[in-house]
Amino acid sequence: MAKATDSKEKTLAAAALLFRRQGFHGTALNDVLATAGSPRGSLYFHFPGGKEQIGEAALDLAGEAVRVKIARAAELSPNAKTFLTGIARAMAADLKESDFCNGCPIATTALETAAQSDVLAAAARRAFQSWEQEVARGLARFGAKPDYAAIAATAILSQIEGALLLARTYRSVEPLRRAEAAVKVLAKMAC
Amino acid sequence: MAKATDSKEKTLAAAALLFRRQGFHGTALNDVLATAGSPRGSLYFHFPGGKEQIGEAALDLAGEAVRVKIARAAELSPNAKTFLTGIARAMAADLKESDFCNGCPIATTALETAAQSDVLAAAARRAFQSWEQEVARGLARFGAKPDYAAIAATAILSQIEGALLLARTYRSVEPLRRAEAAVKVLAKMAC
Repeated sequence: MAKATDSKEKTLAAAALLFRRQGFHGTALNDVLATAGSPRGSLYFHFPGGKEQIGEAALDLAGEAVRVKIARAAELSPNAKTFLTGIARAMAADLKESDFCNGCPIATTALETAAQSDVLAAAARRAFQSWEQEVARGLARFGAKPDYAAIAATAILSQIEGALLLARTYRSVEPLRRAEAAVKVLAKMAC
Repeated sequence: MAKATDSKEKTLAAAALLFRRQGFHGTALNDVLATAGSPRGSLYFHFPGGKEQIGEAALDLAGEAVRVKIARAAELSPNAKTFLTGIARAMAADLKESDFCNGCPIATTALETAAQSDVLAAAARRAFQSWEQEVARGLARFGAKPDYAAIAATAILSQIEGALLLARTYRSVEPLRRAEAAVKVLAKMAC
């Protein structure tokens, strides 16, 4: 049983990595198996729903990992400014260390499948909404009123997502550096 | 000759539409031909470089169309606020009228191919940079100093791109409505 769980986790981690780097349609199940080192049989055993089911689970996995990071950043920060610039800096570091391959783990698949798969669209929505809620919760921690925090959280997540898209396309972290200044200004909408 | 040009333009317009809605890898050349109503021979005649060459030309076409819209919005607006909220509103209208299919015409292909094709990555970069420059030019028109205008333009484009991503994923224009308030705040970084 431990082995089966291992193989499921490895497959999911490989899928999440590849969807993040090259998109959902650009990743064949064979690539996932090769990266995970899993046998084909285990894939059908764990994911009888095929690629869409793997995609959903990979989005949930990646979404939860980022949500936890945002929550932790809020806990460890002394103020809203440190909290938000910390998120932008962590994403810039991830992007740079991966030679500009590791952008947002949700955005590519979200855009590719928005009009094609209700299952994947719902998973992408869950991920982004959980991040928005976590940013809003962080802002509330630093004194924002809940309504304003929710509105500012949407703008802050948009800012970081857009900057990540430009940074990846430009192969430069400059848009994320500019986003640091921007999120500070946007936080003032709430605090 | 007129006919050949027609067929090339139809093919490109169809490719730009499909890449925008379902991404680069999710669009087969057969889909492009069917949507354009073009014969297969014309495709190889006009685009001997294949799908990558079509992708590059489609990104250039879509990028230039948006650039012209931004420039026109700046010319027709009395102030920075009307200019920037106008861009966000036009994108929200496009998205809603297309039942949330017409998001950013560059973002999906940009993310899918950033690590895979230098040609497509360069075309996506050209498009986004031309939009940034046009936003900066618009801000300068309303009194911003060039250096500040460039920095604010990156943040404003990031804000709109991120909001468009969330709006498409949520099937709701609410993130773009929140972006209207955000871009007004961001414009103050420059003006």
